[in-house]
Amino acid sequence: MNMSRRLRSLRKIMEAAKLDGMLVSSVPNITYLSAFTGDDSLALVTMESRQIITDFRYVEQVEQECRGWTVVRRDKDLWGAVAAAVKKCRVKRLGFESAHLSHRNHGNLAAAADRVRLVPLESEVENLREVKDAEEVKAIEAALGTQQAAFAEIKEWVKPGMTEKEVARELDYRMRCHGAEGSAFETIVAAGERGSLPHAHATERVIRKGDALLIDWGARRFFYNSDLTRVLHFGTVGRDFEKRYEIVRQAQERSLAVIRPGATFSEVDGAARGFIREKGYGEQFGHSLGHGVGLETHERPTVRGGNEEKLRPGMVFTVEPGIYIPGWGGVRIEDMVLVTDRGVRVLSTCDKDLGRMIL
Amino acid sequence: MNMSRRLRSLRKIMEAAKLDGMLVSSVPNITYLSAFTGDDSLALVTMESRQIITDFRYVEQVEQECRGWTVVRRDKDLWGAVAAAVKKCRVKRLGFESAHLSHRNHGNLAAAADRVRLVPLESEVENLREVKDAEEVKAIEAALGTQQAAFAEIKEWVKPGMTEKEVARELDYRMRCHGAEGSAFETIVAAGERGSLPHAHATERVIRKGDALLIDWGARRFFYNSDLTRVLHFGTVGRDFEKRYEIVRQAQERSLAVIRPGATFSEVDGAARGFIREKGYGEQFGHSLGHGVGLETHERPTVRGGNEEKLRPGMVFTVEPGIYIPGWGGVRIEDMVLVTDRGVRVLSTCDKDLGRMIL
Repeated sequence: MNMSRRLRSLRKIMEAAKLDGMLVSSVPNITYLSAFTGDDSLALVTMESRQIITDFRYVEQVEQECRGWTVVRRDKDLWGAVAAAVKKCRVKRLGFESAHLSHRNHGNLAAAADRVRLVPLESEVENLREVKDAEEVKAIEAALGTQQAAFAEIKEWVKPGMTEKEVARELDYRMRCHGAEGSAFETIVAAGERGSLPHAHATERVIRKGDALLIDWGARRFFYNSDLTRVLHFGTVGRDFEKRYEIVRQAQERSLAVIRPGATFSEVDGAARGFIREKGYGEQFGHSLGHGVGLETHERPTVRGGNEEKLRPGMVFTVEPGIYIPGWGGVRIEDMVLVTDRGVRVLSTCDKDLGRMIL
Repeated sequence: MNMSRRLRSLRKIMEAAKLDGMLVSSVPNITYLSAFTGDDSLALVTMESRQIITDFRYVEQVEQECRGWTVVRRDKDLWGAVAAAVKKCRVKRLGFESAHLSHRNHGNLAAAADRVRLVPLESEVENLREVKDAEEVKAIEAALGTQQAAFAEIKEWVKPGMTEKEVARELDYRMRCHGAEGSAFETIVAAGERGSLPHAHATERVIRKGDALLIDWGARRFFYNSDLTRVLHFGTVGRDFEKRYEIVRQAQERSLAVIRPGATFSEVDGAARGFIREKGYGEQFGHSLGHGVGLETHERPTVRGGNEEKLRPGMVFTVEPGIYIPGWGGVRIEDMVLVTDRGVRVLSTCDKDLGRMIL
């Protein structure tokens, strides 16, 4: 990963905000800047130096992972250690991550570093992370590869009589057999009427003939995540299911068709949403169309109405329209896309034609 | 779970702080009070009412999970929805969780609810969670049961030539076969010299004859967690390993012997730490002795020097001394205990005699 480019970008932001120091407290932001993969630590960046402030458990790990960074080992008094490091670097104006520092720790920092001006910054490192470089895209594709290989096996294996929990367990296991470090998030497996819960925990609910089975799963590889949803169906498909599945599938197509640099997220969201609304299911599609994926499964950008931000090449996000009807169930189709110089590349290659979903 | 008792306790705290409303933003704290298991939501408790403020994705789930709670569905404007709910309940002094509300969201809340006095509270719900009721202890024991059953199978199965990642994957899978909902945290499997990294990610490192293998793993069951560490050894044990293993084992015994209501956490920590220091490894045991376990894997109490809080019946925490030597490796033995009316019950029943660790 090109870490020095990332640091340069951060220092430009610091310069624009007239900061001589920046305290990074979000774990994925620290990973992004330093390659450190632990937690409970802080990164302090000045124009000349970069330090990880951590405890005993991570000292050796920082030395192994973070080339060019200095380790500051702290004991119990984290904020005292931060204040000492800030003072040593003669920082006068220190930026901090307003979204990732708690009200309490802001108070602790202000008390410990009482001669330093604290300047809140809004998601600046997250903004850098919105556009992926080639190596990041490769990691995301590796994650996708493991989750798709596992899903292909699950399609051969899953049968009525199994429980949601069994399917989730087997899918998670097989992603790791294919090289994933783990699941990107808690795998959602929702049978029949449970599909109307967009974020259902897998339960002991037994899968029956005639059930739809909504599966929302993802893998983590090289610390990057992936995220897809498919809906399988056991036995003959009813008219309602067929109709709703086709609406969601076509809605997704509409959104994919407008993705290109310069389009807005609001337009991308609106393309699918308008179509679903036209078909009479506007109220049943209550979440945003998608979200960025990278070091976190949910990160910037947010693909939703009202976000007038423009798509840029290198952005990676999900496109996941759905229809949810309590008592009946739900349909969601989720793929991952990369904005290219001229348009879009769909990163996921998993089947979604209804014919291929019927087992 | 006795939810009404928990709410009564919270309302007593509110009364003492002269609050007529409390905004809970920590996910496990919301689960503890309401049984809601989703995220991205807030709980608003007044003397007469309790509400979950959530979005489309969770409306149906709240209705299923949270008896006696009202759902407030919000759209994009979370803080507007909170302010409206607060206003409707005529809240004048609103408590918030200072450790769980970001600096930014505190600003958002203050701007949206500009006629309400915001009062920061310090970990009050976490303090309630320190003492477990019988049902919580049962859930933790269920989690322990799944992790111990899986480990017994792994001991039969693991062989030199396998990688750390394979062992972690298999262990995680088997916990779920025994009923766990998932792992409590990312399973640590560290072979040989990698054992000196207290929080190592499992890698492709191949296990060789003569290696120690440190495994730190845990399960989640009924939303409660468990957490243990054992060190296996393949083939003949060297003198250094034997000596250090025995020191850690005896250090743990010393701490277990002082656990009883009224002892302080500082005393419990000091018993193991003093022994390890006496044996010349004080610098090699750099982390605290343990931590509470419950809805989170790491929660209150913190078992460390300087914590003069007294042990109370119903507290559940880990006791996990260790010795870590970069280049050589590490030994840690971790068990979970429950403080009883008269002393201690060790909840974990997994072997730890060195003889039983050699494969």
